[in-house]
Amino acid sequence: MIVRIIGTGLLGTSLGLALSGRHEIQLEDASPMTAALAQDLGAGLQASTDSPAPDLVIVATPPDVAATTVNSALVAFPHAIVTDVASVKEIVLAEVTGGRERYVGSHPMAGRERSGAIAADGDLFIGRPWVVVPHETSRPDAIDMVKRIAMEVGAFPMEMGAAAHDSAVARVSHVPQLMSSLVAATLVDAPPSSLDLAGQGLRDVTRIASSDPKLWATIIAGNPAFVADILCSIRSRLDSLIDGVKTMAEQNTHTGVASVARVISDGNIGVSRIPGKHGGAPVRYATVYVLVPDKPGELGRLFTETGQIGVNIEDLTLEHSAAQPVGRAALSVNPSQAKPLADGLEERGWTVASVEMEEN
Amino acid sequence: MIVRIIGTGLLGTSLGLALSGRHEIQLEDASPMTAALAQDLGAGLQASTDSPAPDLVIVATPPDVAATTVNSALVAFPHAIVTDVASVKEIVLAEVTGGRERYVGSHPMAGRERSGAIAADGDLFIGRPWVVVPHETSRPDAIDMVKRIAMEVGAFPMEMGAAAHDSAVARVSHVPQLMSSLVAATLVDAPPSSLDLAGQGLRDVTRIASSDPKLWATIIAGNPAFVADILCSIRSRLDSLIDGVKTMAEQNTHTGVASVARVISDGNIGVSRIPGKHGGAPVRYATVYVLVPDKPGELGRLFTETGQIGVNIEDLTLEHSAAQPVGRAALSVNPSQAKPLADGLEERGWTVASVEMEEN
Repeated sequence: MIVRIIGTGLLGTSLGLALSGRHEIQLEDASPMTAALAQDLGAGLQASTDSPAPDLVIVATPPDVAATTVNSALVAFPHAIVTDVASVKEIVLAEVTGGRERYVGSHPMAGRERSGAIAADGDLFIGRPWVVVPHETSRPDAIDMVKRIAMEVGAFPMEMGAAAHDSAVARVSHVPQLMSSLVAATLVDAPPSSLDLAGQGLRDVTRIASSDPKLWATIIAGNPAFVADILCSIRSRLDSLIDGVKTMAEQNTHTGVASVARVISDGNIGVSRIPGKHGGAPVRYATVYVLVPDKPGELGRLFTETGQIGVNIEDLTLEHSAAQPVGRAALSVNPSQAKPLADGLEERGWTVASVEMEEN
Repeated sequence: MIVRIIGTGLLGTSLGLALSGRHEIQLEDASPMTAALAQDLGAGLQASTDSPAPDLVIVATPPDVAATTVNSALVAFPHAIVTDVASVKEIVLAEVTGGRERYVGSHPMAGRERSGAIAADGDLFIGRPWVVVPHETSRPDAIDMVKRIAMEVGAFPMEMGAAAHDSAVARVSHVPQLMSSLVAATLVDAPPSSLDLAGQGLRDVTRIASSDPKLWATIIAGNPAFVADILCSIRSRLDSLIDGVKTMAEQNTHTGVASVARVISDGNIGVSRIPGKHGGAPVRYATVYVLVPDKPGELGRLFTETGQIGVNIEDLTLEHSAAQPVGRAALSVNPSQAKPLADGLEERGWTVASVEMEEN
């Protein structure tokens, strides 16, 4: 199959790398230098006026020119299926004109903080969801072709409508980004000594606050209605919370306690709905906390010995706080393996700080 | 030295475990059963009416009875130094009456989600900050004694005033907890398919949203004024942000872009102020992303081979999303070691997805 990729930034070039062993890839970019770079990286061959017509066009331009580029491609290649990979789908679909039956939207959930061809990676899509967004007149063979491409790069195709997609990403991606940034913004004026008290919780909440402002302004601009709705629901809860906390402060009573408990408790319910590692319902893990001296080879020894004990680590985090000579590794395992792991590690001289069962 | 620990929950029992090799520990709790459990765990011996008077009393009761307990101890043991470990300090200090010169507040930054003696751990304080909170009439030897105890359990004593402490924890702990819960609460009504799109960002932002509502209501009740101030500053920024996003939605223009970019950009500045692993200014790390097949022994092999390459891993996260057969390990290393590590791993057959330099 001949696949033309228009826009050879991070996603376009990564797609070229992932697909070039399987298909004939034509690369096109508003900047010929950028297309040449993608070619040098092995993502395919630069398209020319002599190139044969493609069977599939993947538009991987910045989102604000995606619809225009889709329309040009539908006209230029009247037999091709056309998709785009923009992170918002309703605004693109609304502007697609002629040949709509050959258009199917896409959103591979494989962003990263860096952009550009040089950051491209053929493995970028492995194991990630790839949302396929057909509309009422999309041809079935067009939908199938886009799903096939998703699977060929190792992603999991998921079919959703444009509005459902945009609402979902507002909730699980766009609003969490903005809230993380709002929390981090409160640190701008913090006395330095207060930041020395920062623990793992603050670090987790604000990790994504280092994202690119220009990129995120463009993303939010493509999805303002759903984002505004969710932000307003947060503001309404925040208003109640502030009322409760101010009541505590001013009347020196505990009558505001319920408002705090309600927010935390609703948060408990919400976070428990995030699917576990292998999809479906949240998996219940046990976590074994092990102290790890901060010197070379200790993590290696920990994992070698974990392997010897025969336990599979499902997830793993290394926690630390300021000025700490010892790290704390959190090893998530199947609950039945927690005790054998803890016992085995202690036999081998490790300090197991604790074993915790995650309750859902 | 004779140390009496009043309140044998998580912190009291952990302190007993950490100090019992070095001092004579007396254990006391409103529930004698709880004190007996702490004794069985090895945290010291239950206090009786015959017990000799202690040199130091550590009050580790729930925060709402800390001040009363401190006052009783100052009366009962007229020669003892008295400290408490409550997570807020102004309200305790305000209620301490006679013998104030023998009182010094404390806050070991070593909380965890679980509570109770059974979760206790003598290593709980290792490498954590321990805030020592003297007041204008605290005796110098009292301050020194509390700092010494902090160091004996492996913590790093940091001296701060009560108001500075309460303001700091509002900012780096209490408000981030509430905001994480507010984000998680938006997931309560989310369609299940939207949650399938959840990535690592949402998981990080909402990790602490699984905390205990009752515990947190008590913590916030002890620090409402500082918490309300910071929540109000967030609401004011949120108001501007919502105005900007609504402008985008209603007028279908990009005039709201600046409000989004400003929030993200302020967040960039804030998050860059969080100290790095070893205190002081943020350390610049490089991150090597490696694909790890989801089967036993693979992490062990990765770390063994990292050790063979001779590189020290500073921090490490395993990323995954729903239904993923392959994990992505993020290995943070000194920037000078990134390339040797990536090359060494590829020579040994690993897929290095990318190498990223963290910019501060």
